[in-house]
Amino acid sequence: MHYFLAAATGDHTKVLLTLFIMLVAAKLMAELFERLRQPAVAGEILAGVIIGPSLLAWAAPSEITSILAEVGVIFLLFTVGLETKPAAIFKVGKQAAVVAVLGVIAPFLCGWLLMKAWGATSIEALFVGTAMVATSVGITARVLSGMGLLDAPTARIILGAAVIDDILGLLVLAVVSSMAAGTVNYLEILTTAGLAIGFTVFVALVGAPVITRFAPGVDRLRSGHGMFILALVLCLGLSISAAYIGVAAIIGSFLAGMALAEAAEDHPKMHQQINGVTEFLVPFFLVNIGMQLRLDVFRSSSVIILSVLITLVAVVTKLLGCGLAACNLGMKRAAQVGMGMVPRGEVGIIVAQIGLSLAVIGAELYGAVLFMAVATTVIAPPFLKLLYASEAAARGAIGPPDAGGIVASGDLFKIG
Amino acid sequence: MHYFLAAATGDHTKVLLTLFIMLVAAKLMAELFERLRQPAVAGEILAGVIIGPSLLAWAAPSEITSILAEVGVIFLLFTVGLETKPAAIFKVGKQAAVVAVLGVIAPFLCGWLLMKAWGATSIEALFVGTAMVATSVGITARVLSGMGLLDAPTARIILGAAVIDDILGLLVLAVVSSMAAGTVNYLEILTTAGLAIGFTVFVALVGAPVITRFAPGVDRLRSGHGMFILALVLCLGLSISAAYIGVAAIIGSFLAGMALAEAAEDHPKMHQQINGVTEFLVPFFLVNIGMQLRLDVFRSSSVIILSVLITLVAVVTKLLGCGLAACNLGMKRAAQVGMGMVPRGEVGIIVAQIGLSLAVIGAELYGAVLFMAVATTVIAPPFLKLLYASEAAARGAIGPPDAGGIVASGDLFKIG
Repeated sequence: MHYFLAAATGDHTKVLLTLFIMLVAAKLMAELFERLRQPAVAGEILAGVIIGPSLLAWAAPSEITSILAEVGVIFLLFTVGLETKPAAIFKVGKQAAVVAVLGVIAPFLCGWLLMKAWGATSIEALFVGTAMVATSVGITARVLSGMGLLDAPTARIILGAAVIDDILGLLVLAVVSSMAAGTVNYLEILTTAGLAIGFTVFVALVGAPVITRFAPGVDRLRSGHGMFILALVLCLGLSISAAYIGVAAIIGSFLAGMALAEAAEDHPKMHQQINGVTEFLVPFFLVNIGMQLRLDVFRSSSVIILSVLITLVAVVTKLLGCGLAACNLGMKRAAQVGMGMVPRGEVGIIVAQIGLSLAVIGAELYGAVLFMAVATTVIAPPFLKLLYASEAAARGAIGPPDAGGIVASGDLFKIG
Repeated sequence: MHYFLAAATGDHTKVLLTLFIMLVAAKLMAELFERLRQPAVAGEILAGVIIGPSLLAWAAPSEITSILAEVGVIFLLFTVGLETKPAAIFKVGKQAAVVAVLGVIAPFLCGWLLMKAWGATSIEALFVGTAMVATSVGITARVLSGMGLLDAPTARIILGAAVIDDILGLLVLAVVSSMAAGTVNYLEILTTAGLAIGFTVFVALVGAPVITRFAPGVDRLRSGHGMFILALVLCLGLSISAAYIGVAAIIGSFLAGMALAEAAEDHPKMHQQINGVTEFLVPFFLVNIGMQLRLDVFRSSSVIILSVLITLVAVVTKLLGCGLAACNLGMKRAAQVGMGMVPRGEVGIIVAQIGLSLAVIGAELYGAVLFMAVATTVIAPPFLKLLYASEAAARGAIGPPDAGGIVASGDLFKIG
């Protein structure tokens, strides 16, 4: 009897079971990490490592988990955008640009040098350098939103720098990829760069005024939930547009969130509904990062050493590069900005996958870059929490001092 | 440059575009239908027919859309369960059982007779009868929740009858499927029947008291959103358990919702978050039903005639069968109950797919059963809206009488 139903629904049930395991593992590890006074984000990524193919093999990345992960990070950046007024980003624009530029140059050069010193080919060295340029702003944004610090000055700089970093990373990837393919068409690259910058600037400037004017009309729609539906359509629509233009989908959803930030203040119900979607989907994003890790390439000690070296260089170069660019703000804030740009996450993984698909890096180097992407993503959150502890304390978002700074994470919005 | 990113992310972007098209089409048709004073549900299913392979071919059912559709209807029934206290269902249990039994016998017998009269083989006739037994309670629940009438007496009867109907339908499907396969193992069928009934009764009886006792502890968890996470875990966990036991996943999520109904009253924020997930995912459920329709088999007039006949019999037998079982409540309420059981939706489609996969029905009969499943699902909502218009008016959920009864649909909860 099961058999007959299984014919039509069994595969679905298996997929649902995988999603269920991912969700439960993420939330158990998040709770454990909170109790150990560590950030939930790191726990949820490690949950993916544990249940993933490298260890327990209870779940594996698939098309479904990747899509849910992508929609999850899209909504994550959308909710971050909802908390961010465009003016606040424009104000720190210059500083963010310097942070982004130094944060691209330092890891790229040092990654390239490291690989050359290791004896890699030129194209391998270029690719590893490119993978180290990536920034996964979702991780930092998640930690800061959990601490209620998305409006801290350095948080704005990190968000602005991440947008610029993504465009710069896109250009580096385009140049290096076309070098790997044999020819570099600079005209085409310049055109797409122009499109990417034009799209970003246009939406950032025009989005908010347009939405603020049309929001009242949306409330009058018949089919209820007008603002919520507008939010969904804008979030997905701009994400897809961004992806087709060539920048990351999350840049689109972040801009969509910013465009709605003003109107969202009058719609707390919409805010909670979006928050529900985000909280449901973000665990899939985090667990999916951890599940990508492949420990089977680490049988040779040289791969282990290389992975650790790449990870070290990846951490130090962002920390120093971005930190240097923000040193006018003082040591501590410079460290906040630097650490905020450390996680490579899904962006680093995508670059590694492109390298593998172009056959310019082999399975071992791919494993090492994946390790770097996952390790930087797990390492950064605890340090971020430390670096921002006093700000969080000043806002009363943490417990009494003797409680050791337990932060109620995961609570994106303090409405209702 | 696009090319290189496309290597890693292009497929995701295409999938996201499909989801975006489904969402926008659903919401545009919902708005149009509301303006025409028709239920949004019917509009969203028709949106699927329009953008699906039969007409525009802008989107097609895939593993991703099916999974999102399944998760969507799981959350839909979960939110309906959240509005339903177990006691309210137990109170109407006997009436619901009679409705379910007559609502299974009448369509099965008449469907079988129709097919025999049409000249079909015995096994074809049995399968079409089985497909006509199915009830897609999600559609009716969506219409009634949109009207704020989930707590109407007949709504409780429909919900209870749908649960029993699903278990009976499972048994009919098991017997007919094993007849098609050659042998019927009654012991196995009885065992599974026992499991299905045991699971349903156990969760219905034990769920609510257990949750109500442990809910306060959940609020003390470190990782924030405790109740929301408990809700997600229960909803998915019981859905999957139900599916493995053999009943529909939505029975599990409905029971999970009922178990949480009491605790949910003290957690309006969790309620809004779940509502956000549901409102995001339900359009995929509705559009996916419409997208299944295949108009290409309707080139022969005999298939068209058969489809219309099957649909007519499907509507009339549920209406009369379930209505007769509820005739003690008066004509109007009996009609409400009967019409509420008419939509076959995704359940009818699954039975048709099983028939196709067992090779007991051919492509044309499959097309006719699909047509019946989609048509009953589109036909019922407008009549439901009419049949419940006076109840809705009495609760002030509709506009002034001269406005012709515009109902703000899609608004599952009236919090905040």
